[in-house]
Amino acid sequence: MGLSPFVLNFFRAILVASSSQGNSDLAVANQIHPLRPQSGFGGYYVAGVSCLSWRLGVETNNIIGWKTVPEECEGYVGNYLLGGQYRKDSKVVTYEAYEYAKSLRVRKKDLWIFDIDETSLSNLPYYAKHGFGVEPYNPTAFNKWVATGKAPALPESLQLYNNLLNLGIKVAFITGRSEEQRDITQTNLLNAGYHTWEKLILKGPSFKNKTAVVYKSAQRKKLENNGYNIVGNIGDQWSDLLGDNLGDRTFKLPDPVYYIS
Amino acid sequence: MGLSPFVLNFFRAILVASSSQGNSDLAVANQIHPLRPQSGFGGYYVAGVSCLSWRLGVETNNIIGWKTVPEECEGYVGNYLLGGQYRKDSKVVTYEAYEYAKSLRVRKKDLWIFDIDETSLSNLPYYAKHGFGVEPYNPTAFNKWVATGKAPALPESLQLYNNLLNLGIKVAFITGRSEEQRDITQTNLLNAGYHTWEKLILKGPSFKNKTAVVYKSAQRKKLENNGYNIVGNIGDQWSDLLGDNLGDRTFKLPDPVYYIS
Repeated sequence: MGLSPFVLNFFRAILVASSSQGNSDLAVANQIHPLRPQSGFGGYYVAGVSCLSWRLGVETNNIIGWKTVPEECEGYVGNYLLGGQYRKDSKVVTYEAYEYAKSLRVRKKDLWIFDIDETSLSNLPYYAKHGFGVEPYNPTAFNKWVATGKAPALPESLQLYNNLLNLGIKVAFITGRSEEQRDITQTNLLNAGYHTWEKLILKGPSFKNKTAVVYKSAQRKKLENNGYNIVGNIGDQWSDLLGDNLGDRTFKLPDPVYYIS
Repeated sequence: MGLSPFVLNFFRAILVASSSQGNSDLAVANQIHPLRPQSGFGGYYVAGVSCLSWRLGVETNNIIGWKTVPEECEGYVGNYLLGGQYRKDSKVVTYEAYEYAKSLRVRKKDLWIFDIDETSLSNLPYYAKHGFGVEPYNPTAFNKWVATGKAPALPESLQLYNNLLNLGIKVAFITGRSEEQRDITQTNLLNAGYHTWEKLILKGPSFKNKTAVVYKSAQRKKLENNGYNIVGNIGDQWSDLLGDNLGDRTFKLPDPVYYIS
């Protein structure tokens, strides 16, 4: 159905990785995708730049406003995402989130905010075909991918989502996807396993030229004005987790592929 | 003078690393310290825990309130700190900070906040002898080390400091060290190359039982009330970079050794 063997291997890797743990994850993932990890702990060096340091700089919000992944880091980022470490890093985040959630005395209007892209759903099948963030963002191509509605769940986030619902915490999605993408987004979420939500908030025309920080802060404020207590907030971008009405605790998933302010 | 060969090697590593770049840093550092990097990109695994993921979780403020480094990660953290990657990661942070600073139109009362421990000064000679954060914090032993006044500068921070002064930006230190440690801290800063400052703010008795977030926010507020514009703020703990009057931009240096709330 138009999916390259590379992308099919990605799905297989996701599936296998989801059903195993620890070292075996990594071993299996390494067998079934064509990229190879860089040797040594220092990462991939080009002209004195460490791709490891670049990624840490991005994840800690020290490097901001960047447009594309450094070209020299394409192999490194591809390996990171498909080789197992991305999934392990995500697992630690959602583990901490769940441990925190279990410590709460849940009230009726407690709410957890989920971002969608690279948080609830993964666009890795798209980025694997588009240079893992090295190519400049192409809204036409990306929206075409979104319109397929085939983005898989990030398995760690889906597990957190189910765990939170079981604790009695409600979930709302706030996404930078546009209001016109509501139907396909809803279909995709349902197909990926997100079977219920309190709100699905997409970016309407009045926020068109606003940053994610402004848009998402305004939506969270509205939710709190409506009586919800935002007890947690998870996203892959710092713009999901900065601004106002952030929630009692925020969780940052990894994303070395793109930056949204 | 009571320094073990291990610690002397650390200083040598710092010196050599400071005067070289890129791959050579790493190669040299690997020759002169006894620890060896873990092979593969997945880090050091114990019971399904990836020390790489643990460290990323700490640096992104997902893992909070921890008391000690997981015992299984001592070797990993030691390698990280002494093997070169820590210095590379720090360099990316201070590079971004300087690029940002150069973009400013500097005003007379523009101020940059530096934390001290693991930001301006490095206590690695101490932590190398105390399990790289695996041992529970021992205030007696640590304060004895502080009293020697021999903490070296983190070279990347010292360079940033000099670069900022050259741009006309003033510097203030805000530290969790106590007011009784003022003299030795001042001596240590001077000996390490920090030759001037606008303020050196230590933790007085009125903040004794307050968190770093509360104490440091209050100090920054006071500075802004006195007419300073905090244009930048650098620290190794998120508690340096959260709260109020944060400054126009914050920079997070790596620290996988301890957590301060």
